[in-house]
Amino acid sequence: MTKNRKAAIIGGGVIGGGWAARFLLNGWDVAVFDPDPEAPRKVGEVIGNARKSLPALSDIPMVAEGKLTFAQTITEAVQGAHYIQESVSERLDLKHRVYAQIQQAAELGTPIGSSTSGFKPSELQENAANPSVIFVAHPFNPVYLLPLAEVVPSAKSDASVIENAKDILREIGMFPLHVRKEIDAHIADRFLEAVWREALWLVKDGVATTEEIDEAIRMGFGLRWGQMGLFETYRVAGGEAGMKHFMAQFGPCLTWPWTKLMDVPEFNDELVDLIAGQSDAQSGHHTIRELERIRDGNLIGFLRSLKERNWGAGKVLREHDERRAVALHAELAKGIDTGAKAAPLVMYHGQVLPGWIDYNGHMTESRYLFVCSEACDNFLRMIGAGMDYVAAGHSFYTAETHIRHLGEARLGDAVRGEMQILTADEKRFRSFVRIMIGDTCVATVEQLCLHVDMKAGKTMPASPEVWAKLEGVAKAHAGLPMPEGAGRAVGQKK
Amino acid sequence: MTKNRKAAIIGGGVIGGGWAARFLLNGWDVAVFDPDPEAPRKVGEVIGNARKSLPALSDIPMVAEGKLTFAQTITEAVQGAHYIQESVSERLDLKHRVYAQIQQAAELGTPIGSSTSGFKPSELQENAANPSVIFVAHPFNPVYLLPLAEVVPSAKSDASVIENAKDILREIGMFPLHVRKEIDAHIADRFLEAVWREALWLVKDGVATTEEIDEAIRMGFGLRWGQMGLFETYRVAGGEAGMKHFMAQFGPCLTWPWTKLMDVPEFNDELVDLIAGQSDAQSGHHTIRELERIRDGNLIGFLRSLKERNWGAGKVLREHDERRAVALHAELAKGIDTGAKAAPLVMYHGQVLPGWIDYNGHMTESRYLFVCSEACDNFLRMIGAGMDYVAAGHSFYTAETHIRHLGEARLGDAVRGEMQILTADEKRFRSFVRIMIGDTCVATVEQLCLHVDMKAGKTMPASPEVWAKLEGVAKAHAGLPMPEGAGRAVGQKK
Repeated sequence: MTKNRKAAIIGGGVIGGGWAARFLLNGWDVAVFDPDPEAPRKVGEVIGNARKSLPALSDIPMVAEGKLTFAQTITEAVQGAHYIQESVSERLDLKHRVYAQIQQAAELGTPIGSSTSGFKPSELQENAANPSVIFVAHPFNPVYLLPLAEVVPSAKSDASVIENAKDILREIGMFPLHVRKEIDAHIADRFLEAVWREALWLVKDGVATTEEIDEAIRMGFGLRWGQMGLFETYRVAGGEAGMKHFMAQFGPCLTWPWTKLMDVPEFNDELVDLIAGQSDAQSGHHTIRELERIRDGNLIGFLRSLKERNWGAGKVLREHDERRAVALHAELAKGIDTGAKAAPLVMYHGQVLPGWIDYNGHMTESRYLFVCSEACDNFLRMIGAGMDYVAAGHSFYTAETHIRHLGEARLGDAVRGEMQILTADEKRFRSFVRIMIGDTCVATVEQLCLHVDMKAGKTMPASPEVWAKLEGVAKAHAGLPMPEGAGRAVGQKK
Repeated sequence: MTKNRKAAIIGGGVIGGGWAARFLLNGWDVAVFDPDPEAPRKVGEVIGNARKSLPALSDIPMVAEGKLTFAQTITEAVQGAHYIQESVSERLDLKHRVYAQIQQAAELGTPIGSSTSGFKPSELQENAANPSVIFVAHPFNPVYLLPLAEVVPSAKSDASVIENAKDILREIGMFPLHVRKEIDAHIADRFLEAVWREALWLVKDGVATTEEIDEAIRMGFGLRWGQMGLFETYRVAGGEAGMKHFMAQFGPCLTWPWTKLMDVPEFNDELVDLIAGQSDAQSGHHTIRELERIRDGNLIGFLRSLKERNWGAGKVLREHDERRAVALHAELAKGIDTGAKAAPLVMYHGQVLPGWIDYNGHMTESRYLFVCSEACDNFLRMIGAGMDYVAAGHSFYTAETHIRHLGEARLGDAVRGEMQILTADEKRFRSFVRIMIGDTCVATVEQLCLHVDMKAGKTMPASPEVWAKLEGVAKAHAGLPMPEGAGRAVGQKK
């Protein structure tokens, strides 16, 4: 086994803790220095968050975590370190003192990145013993999840140190963005600071509350910016005519009071050509139609993931579904009244949606079970074991499921779930759902469901009312032939 | 059957087309007016995009589409309309002329929303026959996917018209944000305009290219803003001390040249208290720890969906996996060579999300199969049968599945999928996935997967490279005991 490399983290706040977590979970040993006696607890909590979330981004097993130590001094922290990251408060004099102590103890060429939001690398380097290894490596909270690190060298920087640092950042899963010209607040924070100042005005002037401002961001352009930035988004917005059209359209607004930022560059052909040319180099390998499709796919991904979490724009989508579901359920209830006759019960009607399609172009396998579950839920509602019954402490739990895939459901197909009760007693039923597209059975799902006392976690007989209805269906279905494929084990010979 | 309601869309560009698509796909009849002879084609293309994407956000069947017509005149378009949306160019005189024509033909109280990015409603209303029904309804491109519509009335607006308009916007799946005080560029576009101006300076001054600026946005804060906005994000960044701490830390920067926006409000206790109070009202029902978990969950959702699409930050994650997979494959190969006893492969790490919970409070049953599918997809990727392999026409299809439910996964649980290969040959494998919460196995999923030629729809041997890797794992797993429960049929006695 090879020895882990070591990262020294100077400053153990939210940002320092995030750096520690990223290195640690990517197999580096980490030494943290922070004089705050609370630092180990605080850093520990950030690392705890990271352990719960960072592995979810990985599709391959994580490497073994490195070793975490809390050093008593900067000297102890940086000894033998291969990379040093400073995340102390935004005070230049403090940062200078920290670098002086680091450079007394560290190896000569060890990269020293600073998490500063705004200081230029040439300011950080002032009076340093070895300025060439000090640079900006500006991350974004939560550091353990967001990939961006703005890497800003100055004219005094050692190019090989910068390249080494960028390799290390990539190795811990980050995206080092090389900022070629130093400027106050680098790139991203210039935007953040402009928006922050604008937002302070809106709150102060009573135009909007913090909540209204947040909604204005996360329900609209915030979603766009997670997948394309400013320019690529506007290129697409320009439609077929692209970036030049967009700029021609919105160029004149530059002189209007649409923001407090009234110091604007001269809007001339030179600027338009510069931007249109850069935009072509950036995005020109895709047509506008392709970019639209990519953008829409990304937005669907974002929106669906928020919908699963019932958060932000995802909450809006859920409420929209619920409003439309009222009409749908009323229609289904009409069918339920004609219930227990000697045929399988059609307990689900639906349509294969784009979000249900896998990379083979078919309905993804868990959606077959989803259709069956929906059919079963509707059946339970019909026999009086719906939400109210569950709220009173009883429910049917699925114990076992067997699925056979016999065909393929494709995008847009109208899909039906037909339910047959194979056997039932007061404590359980065995069901068989055929998933149908027209006359074709694309899958069958056999299940054993147990009636439980949810609090005790034990099986028990269903209420007399529920059992009477279940028994009625079971008796009506007793005359149906046992379906082909019922009772199979996986891979069993026919 | 009830008659559809009708929306009139005046201006058929990218924005007008997006409005048309939203109404149409939510069951409204739509009449579009645009003198451009190309408008039907352009609007048709936007609606085509919408048809491919909007249904993917829905978990219930879409209602039947309304009827789309292209009107020859504004009069024809607005006759009998229940809602009118104007999306013509940003010229106030043009908008005034359009409203005059609309109000000659439309019903008196019909809401007239304007898509203007910047004009105030009182400006739009000037000289109108009935100013009280004209207001701003500012959407975000793509209008058919992004929920935000800034609804801005003026003092002259009829409150009941505004409420009616908000109801209609909700009905077509939007989030109407009521802007209480009119201002140039409303709320969101003030931020967009500030960022745009800042970005123009950076390009003009040679600090960054359009591509570098876009990366600075989409690799970092852009991802944050799709799920929490500016203030909630900063509240969390403040850590345990929250909003006041954040403001104390970054308040002084307001006077620094971190942006060209140097006109800043006075940073005093009054402003800090105002913002901290509003932030408490907005987010105070969650602790900072809870907000951190929500934020991290949302970011994981975004990042994973980008990873599926190999785009933006998702590309960074893939490259990170690929780098680590090299080491992993080497290790796996070593294990196989030395005949060392292998363990089941941990092929999925995740967290039980709110959208996965059923009305019993447990993970809904189709999600157990989902976890197994994800584990299996990762396994297939690992043995070289991922997307590229599928694109070349071959894939593994699931033929049969058996699930046992042994315990319950609950909201927030860290869930793991551990995969064991029971048997394999060149045409098929039988797998057994244990779904684990900590040391507890909550479900097992046994599957038979067949290797198919997708075009021919027939089983065939896997490629030699894929089979070599699959065989390696199968041999390594041959020494593991047959899992309890493998080979069962539903309801079989033990």
